[in-house]
Amino acid sequence: MNVIRHTMSLVSLGVFQLGRRTRSQHFRGFLLGTGLGLTAFSSVTYAQAEAQNAKVNRKLDTSRFMAEPITDATVLLGDKANMRHRMELMIMEIQAEFCRALESEEMCGKKFQVDRWQREEGGGGITCVIQDGDVFEKAGVNISVVTGWLPPAAVQQMRSRGKDLTEGVKLPFFASGVSAVIHPRNPHIPTIHFNYRYFEVETPDGKKQWWFGGGTDLTPYYLDEKDARHFHQTLKSACDEHDTTYYPKFKKWCDDYFRIKHRSESRGIGGIFFDDIESPNQEAAFNFVTGCAKAVIPSYMPLVQKHKNREYGNNERQWQLLRRGRYVEFNLIYDRGTKFGLYTPGARYESILMSLPLHARWEYMHEPKATSKEGELMKVLKNPKDWV
Amino acid sequence: MNVIRHTMSLVSLGVFQLGRRTRSQHFRGFLLGTGLGLTAFSSVTYAQAEAQNAKVNRKLDTSRFMAEPITDATVLLGDKANMRHRMELMIMEIQAEFCRALESEEMCGKKFQVDRWQREEGGGGITCVIQDGDVFEKAGVNISVVTGWLPPAAVQQMRSRGKDLTEGVKLPFFASGVSAVIHPRNPHIPTIHFNYRYFEVETPDGKKQWWFGGGTDLTPYYLDEKDARHFHQTLKSACDEHDTTYYPKFKKWCDDYFRIKHRSESRGIGGIFFDDIESPNQEAAFNFVTGCAKAVIPSYMPLVQKHKNREYGNNERQWQLLRRGRYVEFNLIYDRGTKFGLYTPGARYESILMSLPLHARWEYMHEPKATSKEGELMKVLKNPKDWV
Repeated sequence: MNVIRHTMSLVSLGVFQLGRRTRSQHFRGFLLGTGLGLTAFSSVTYAQAEAQNAKVNRKLDTSRFMAEPITDATVLLGDKANMRHRMELMIMEIQAEFCRALESEEMCGKKFQVDRWQREEGGGGITCVIQDGDVFEKAGVNISVVTGWLPPAAVQQMRSRGKDLTEGVKLPFFASGVSAVIHPRNPHIPTIHFNYRYFEVETPDGKKQWWFGGGTDLTPYYLDEKDARHFHQTLKSACDEHDTTYYPKFKKWCDDYFRIKHRSESRGIGGIFFDDIESPNQEAAFNFVTGCAKAVIPSYMPLVQKHKNREYGNNERQWQLLRRGRYVEFNLIYDRGTKFGLYTPGARYESILMSLPLHARWEYMHEPKATSKEGELMKVLKNPKDWV
Repeated sequence: MNVIRHTMSLVSLGVFQLGRRTRSQHFRGFLLGTGLGLTAFSSVTYAQAEAQNAKVNRKLDTSRFMAEPITDATVLLGDKANMRHRMELMIMEIQAEFCRALESEEMCGKKFQVDRWQREEGGGGITCVIQDGDVFEKAGVNISVVTGWLPPAAVQQMRSRGKDLTEGVKLPFFASGVSAVIHPRNPHIPTIHFNYRYFEVETPDGKKQWWFGGGTDLTPYYLDEKDARHFHQTLKSACDEHDTTYYPKFKKWCDDYFRIKHRSESRGIGGIFFDDIESPNQEAAFNFVTGCAKAVIPSYMPLVQKHKNREYGNNERQWQLLRRGRYVEFNLIYDRGTKFGLYTPGARYESILMSLPLHARWEYMHEPKATSKEGELMKVLKNPKDWV
């Protein structure tokens, strides 16, 4: 086990990329996340555990994942009904499917760099990054499964959202999620971001609160109305299967959230965004979130395929870089996950900041002509509209 | 008078770049900043005022400034002892001298774009920017002279620094300052930032609190120890002329302030940083701040001249862009002035964000070899050292 760096705790809205980094392919962890706390089977010898793992791993085909799961396979398969384990298997699957789909678009065989990292306080994550690909200039797909104690700022933030949590008390939490940001090279392909997460907090009376959150949103550089409609329709269909009131509500939430307030413009053309989903029941909520996560590939990959060979010039590239500057502004100034993460001492900042583009540009007083293609995009960024 | 855009109020640590933007060369304002409030001489006709201005302007040679002062020349010269007016003339002079010095290094005659803007609530500013010069990739030099009401967040922040201000009461303020960030093209020339400011707040009992703040700091891409010593020595000499306890104190304050906490590294090799200077008396404090502002050119311009014709390749350029990404991280995540500014509705964000480089780059898990030139710089960024 190659432990390279120590880190500490993070609880954030969407990104739980923290931990002690371990070299991706050589790690077999023995920290077993069970129940609300963290149990390390220190009485099990390395050899015994290896043997046990080998047996269980035959049942759990981990080769389809980007790396070994964070939680030991014995535990994952030992209690299949546990929502923590179901969520971990779901996000591992979503990560792998999405990474494979992206890799299959790369024309020169570029593959994801896979970093499996472990967190001192409990749990860990798998960060997958493509950098300087021919289709994807920078693409990050991350999962994390962490336990720890809620930092005061997180408790405060959750209370402000209506959570019944006591301030000034150490509250154990569990959080797992998948998050991704894809910055393609061709300015005609939009950037996509998604994040789906599951959260548990144990209150001092021994009760457990749980909820799901997440969302998917699109940031085009040039507006293609067909793309916008396809993207939103795919998300709407995924929502409608569970509750027809969801899409309109979560579409508006997304427009409100991804707003660059000082510029009075949106980061992109939105999608869906939600938090604190705990109804009608855990099973239905999990199925809803799974449905949304499964909708990412059909919502986005057709856009990649449609545009990846389109020609573009320096004007389009410069405009893309300017818009990427805006992306950086949103993520570093407003995004709750990024802020919480970075303010936490010892955060695995490389995983948190994988969302930043390879290149960005800031020009003083840049304003595209209203009648230009760039101006057309600005219109819908200034005034978000309904697409379906 | 061409009023292009409305904005609102800002109080920040260092950047007061807010206001209604006016087209630079065509503006003659009649908002006269006098006393703590704002007095508009509405009984003076346009023609009368023009005539009066013409007379006074003969005494105040505004041609040496980048634009007409924010406060009317009649008022500026009418009460020469007023610290507000002395400060305004000083920052106008610093701005012009620094802009001319920078322009004189440009080899193809690139000149500053000058935007004089006005603030609805009171006052305004002059933003000077060079973009895509042959020596300076992006250079912004800004002055602002504003009055208004302190936002609650600013009162809270000032109270936390020990100011005797009542919360929940509307407090009128006056703020003026000069601030600049220069991003040269050649990676061997460091980036410089400085800001010098004067602040007044009136308390409900009619008393006035005032203080000065500021600092100058350097962000090299490659470490040149001679440069570092020259830069710090120039600042130290400027400090020592007023108080030999200042430099060591303000050097440490600078190291503490410009820290990118999530990366445990400094933005650059520091300089000086201070706030709340109100002793030994207003005259001495003003002279100290003026001395520091006057030290900018001798601290920095020799470095520009020394390195501007040095050769560099793609490696150096890429490293410079990565470090500029760190600069963006600091400014958008930690810098108090930027944060306060951008969170204020209607902020003149173009002036606040002129500090961002034209280009920046983020690479996942980039770590230079310890023995490389880039690694040498990282050593002093991780562990700030004394240069003089």
